[in-house]
Amino acid sequence: MVSLDPDDSVVVLAHDRFPDGAKTAVGVLRYADYDVTAVLDRARVGETVGDHVPDVPDAPIVERMADALDTNPDALLIGISPIGGGFDESWRSDVRAAIEAGCDVIAGLHYFLADDEEFAALAAEHGVDLIDVRRPPKDLTVSEGRARDADADVVLTVGTDCSTGKMTTTLELVAAARERGVDAGFVPTGQTGIMIAGWGVPVDRTIADFAAGAVERMIRNAATDHDVLFVEGQGTIVHPAYSGVTCSLLHGAMPDSLVLTHSVGREAIHGYEEFVLPPVEEYVDLYESLAEPVASADVAAGALDTRAVDEDDAARTAVEEYAATLDAPATDPVRFDADEILDTLL
Amino acid sequence: MVSLDPDDSVVVLAHDRFPDGAKTAVGVLRYADYDVTAVLDRARVGETVGDHVPDVPDAPIVERMADALDTNPDALLIGISPIGGGFDESWRSDVRAAIEAGCDVIAGLHYFLADDEEFAALAAEHGVDLIDVRRPPKDLTVSEGRARDADADVVLTVGTDCSTGKMTTTLELVAAARERGVDAGFVPTGQTGIMIAGWGVPVDRTIADFAAGAVERMIRNAATDHDVLFVEGQGTIVHPAYSGVTCSLLHGAMPDSLVLTHSVGREAIHGYEEFVLPPVEEYVDLYESLAEPVASADVAAGALDTRAVDEDDAARTAVEEYAATLDAPATDPVRFDADEILDTLL
Repeated sequence: MVSLDPDDSVVVLAHDRFPDGAKTAVGVLRYADYDVTAVLDRARVGETVGDHVPDVPDAPIVERMADALDTNPDALLIGISPIGGGFDESWRSDVRAAIEAGCDVIAGLHYFLADDEEFAALAAEHGVDLIDVRRPPKDLTVSEGRARDADADVVLTVGTDCSTGKMTTTLELVAAARERGVDAGFVPTGQTGIMIAGWGVPVDRTIADFAAGAVERMIRNAATDHDVLFVEGQGTIVHPAYSGVTCSLLHGAMPDSLVLTHSVGREAIHGYEEFVLPPVEEYVDLYESLAEPVASADVAAGALDTRAVDEDDAARTAVEEYAATLDAPATDPVRFDADEILDTLL
Repeated sequence: MVSLDPDDSVVVLAHDRFPDGAKTAVGVLRYADYDVTAVLDRARVGETVGDHVPDVPDAPIVERMADALDTNPDALLIGISPIGGGFDESWRSDVRAAIEAGCDVIAGLHYFLADDEEFAALAAEHGVDLIDVRRPPKDLTVSEGRARDADADVVLTVGTDCSTGKMTTTLELVAAARERGVDAGFVPTGQTGIMIAGWGVPVDRTIADFAAGAVERMIRNAATDHDVLFVEGQGTIVHPAYSGVTCSLLHGAMPDSLVLTHSVGREAIHGYEEFVLPPVEEYVDLYESLAEPVASADVAAGALDTRAVDEDDAARTAVEEYAATLDAPATDPVRFDADEILDTLL
């Protein structure tokens, strides 16, 4: 299992894509415990984080790792992920500079830095770690079907599509619960969540037979430390490519409650535009009827991403309509407050 | 992709478990094109295959590989799989004898023979291949959501549980279709199916994100060679450990029709006895409603494993009741005839 140090300070690489194309960078800025001392984006040199992301500590945006070394970082974190998860060769000089300066390098790419000959040799020479958070542990096994025995309430986010705010909703719920004094834990299942939390298994990269088992193991371990677990969901159960991962999460986690995330205006599967999203009510039936034979779970709340709506009033109306459709409380946990749906989940 | 030669003749290892605990051995005897020249089972030395498995060419059962070499085999095939898929050290002398005699060794274990130092060195020395059919190809990718474009009708077997006859039903349907002169292809997705067909991808061993993509690739390739494809299903959509694989098959294959397999008397998930099977009607709803948003498919027929029923009349009654419950034609394709459900699928 990946393990990062929350006391580290990091530089985040987000070349040409900060902030809108840099989901990982923004997630780390918003939710990780460690300090971000600089962002690398050659297209925004001289601007600052505060120009683009509200409510996070400010930091300079610089051109290259060499320009960020005076901020005394412990690590360089790759905060963007091209389609396909490859390594962009234009980042090589930054990774090299980080290693030579004694920084660890943290990445969530399909391409593993530790398997890159130059980086591996350089890291050995300088005594730093190359941390590929997308590499699953080697000792995974099949699920025993025992997540329900874990001594914690379990809430899983499920979506109408990818990129509908599952990770964000999960993290906002954890924060809101902790604010109330609830001992809440975050269970990360994807690379950004793992980078933020400093631990976790990338469920989409496990062997298919072991995906539910990986989730079960995380639930059982985390349940010994917390009273309520909020589990980061993945994909959607109607995704032509990724539905198997979603299904493994649902049956591996055996949640008590589900939070259904959706994005205003989304009509088709992102990147698979000929697949039209079914009505929201059908998702509720599908998730609940699929959960039932293994461990019953209700869609107890909704989280609506209203970024596509300019006015707060219109966003509020959209949330109310979504709640009515679900017949359950709903909110936009970023624009409004996750607290609005917390009562029904605790 | 694994590739075996159907003209090979093989010795099948099934120590202590032939025939009832040797699903792979019996599957190969019944359905593979290649000749089985001997079976290794130290508990049945002196008996023959014909004493135990009807309607297949007879072959001697011998104690060890050395005793089978006079049958001139091209390969030794491991025909049993212990729970966990490990290699049983008591088989080592047989594998060694096979390699030293110039035979390839074919296995579907989680433990890869090619990664065993002794076998790898010996195989190199004797110029033979160690074929681990459970090792997926390295170049798999995510599904493009295009299996529906394939120029073939696609039939997928789905089950109420593991070990309810999905592979057998699929192979019997292929045979029945070919007897009618239909150009039917078998799409293998598990180790036994791959050993029988000589090609295929073990979907349960792929990276979870690539499972649907692996199925899609097989469908698109096989569709260029055949008019109708019968796809071997895996697991069940309500399995606490393996449902993700089943879901990836359903959405990756985008079948036109489903055949629901069930075993008479099965009341709980095999090996997970606290998980009670839902009523058969619920499976129909679940499979159809899960398929619908990606590519609609109906449960068009049923296949009932009636081995637990002694009398043919009682078995026939059980099949009729199963058909009534499904509101679709049904048969036991081994005891009776797959032809009985073929019309509705073609």
